[in-house]
Amino acid sequence: MRKVILGVGVSIDGYIARKNGAVDFLFIPKDYSMAEFVKEVDGAVMGRKTFEMALKLGGGSFGSPMKSFVFSRSKPAGERQGVTYTNKTPARLIAELRKQKGKHIWLMGGGELARSFLKADLVEELYIGVVPVLLGAGIPLFPSGFPQREFKLAENKTYSKGLISVRYSRLRKH
Amino acid sequence: MRKVILGVGVSIDGYIARKNGAVDFLFIPKDYSMAEFVKEVDGAVMGRKTFEMALKLGGGSFGSPMKSFVFSRSKPAGERQGVTYTNKTPARLIAELRKQKGKHIWLMGGGELARSFLKADLVEELYIGVVPVLLGAGIPLFPSGFPQREFKLAENKTYSKGLISVRYSRLRKH
Repeated sequence: MRKVILGVGVSIDGYIARKNGAVDFLFIPKDYSMAEFVKEVDGAVMGRKTFEMALKLGGGSFGSPMKSFVFSRSKPAGERQGVTYTNKTPARLIAELRKQKGKHIWLMGGGELARSFLKADLVEELYIGVVPVLLGAGIPLFPSGFPQREFKLAENKTYSKGLISVRYSRLRKH
Repeated sequence: MRKVILGVGVSIDGYIARKNGAVDFLFIPKDYSMAEFVKEVDGAVMGRKTFEMALKLGGGSFGSPMKSFVFSRSKPAGERQGVTYTNKTPARLIAELRKQKGKHIWLMGGGELARSFLKADLVEELYIGVVPVLLGAGIPLFPSGFPQREFKLAENKTYSKGLISVRYSRLRKH
């Protein structure tokens, strides 16, 4: 099955960005690479605000070779700016993507979309990089408002400059 | 110098307790021990709500051999129930404790007191145990409302049942 993997970088206090959307506090140390992870996925989903921030950081272009979907309630559905806008629910879009062959799906954020995915219990893995700073304010990766979800730790690695990379898999009781 | 070490257990989404104060989701695996940490400290400070929850969990008694202080704005200062209630500011109490000889000081929580300590830049270390669950709601360890604070990763260990234990030291730019 194509898994949805929530993959993001956060501060120790769990923020994916400052209040204004800035992600200047995130960094990728020399000994760390996302290459292995990126090989596992061939699709990306994200919230509209996250996409707009990515566009801004990319100087107006979103240069991803992956098939990317942007969830928006306000913008019309359709292909624009290198992505596919969708008004579907996460459950609906993911069900459709799972009918197609492909690798896993990268949930890039932000927090509101992560909450929707967690509410619908669509997140199979967490892949989180924790940078060693407390921001004190910002946009949370896990805003409250979804049911408890158990996970199993799959990986915990330490990189230079104090980056921690953790990976969890959804644990379901049968 | 006697350091203040914020030492607590949290969920992946950063909660120290459920909304009702319950900490049933926390656990201590067999291969993990707080013994080394406990040897480093001989004093404890905590917020009033955290103390009341500890009392409740202890069946009405707070059996700590450490000199313990409870911050409260509503309760009168003085020794009661095995602890010393204080109306002082964190900066004031810690300055007084640092004039006395002793080991480090354990900041046991909760989130509101942690924020006050971080605002006053009194936290020298973080010692956090992360249990592999997303609660989706609860009492946050790091409620927003303090300035950015940089840390240096000092330790990152994996224990059984997916417990991660991380330790950070405050990094100050000179």
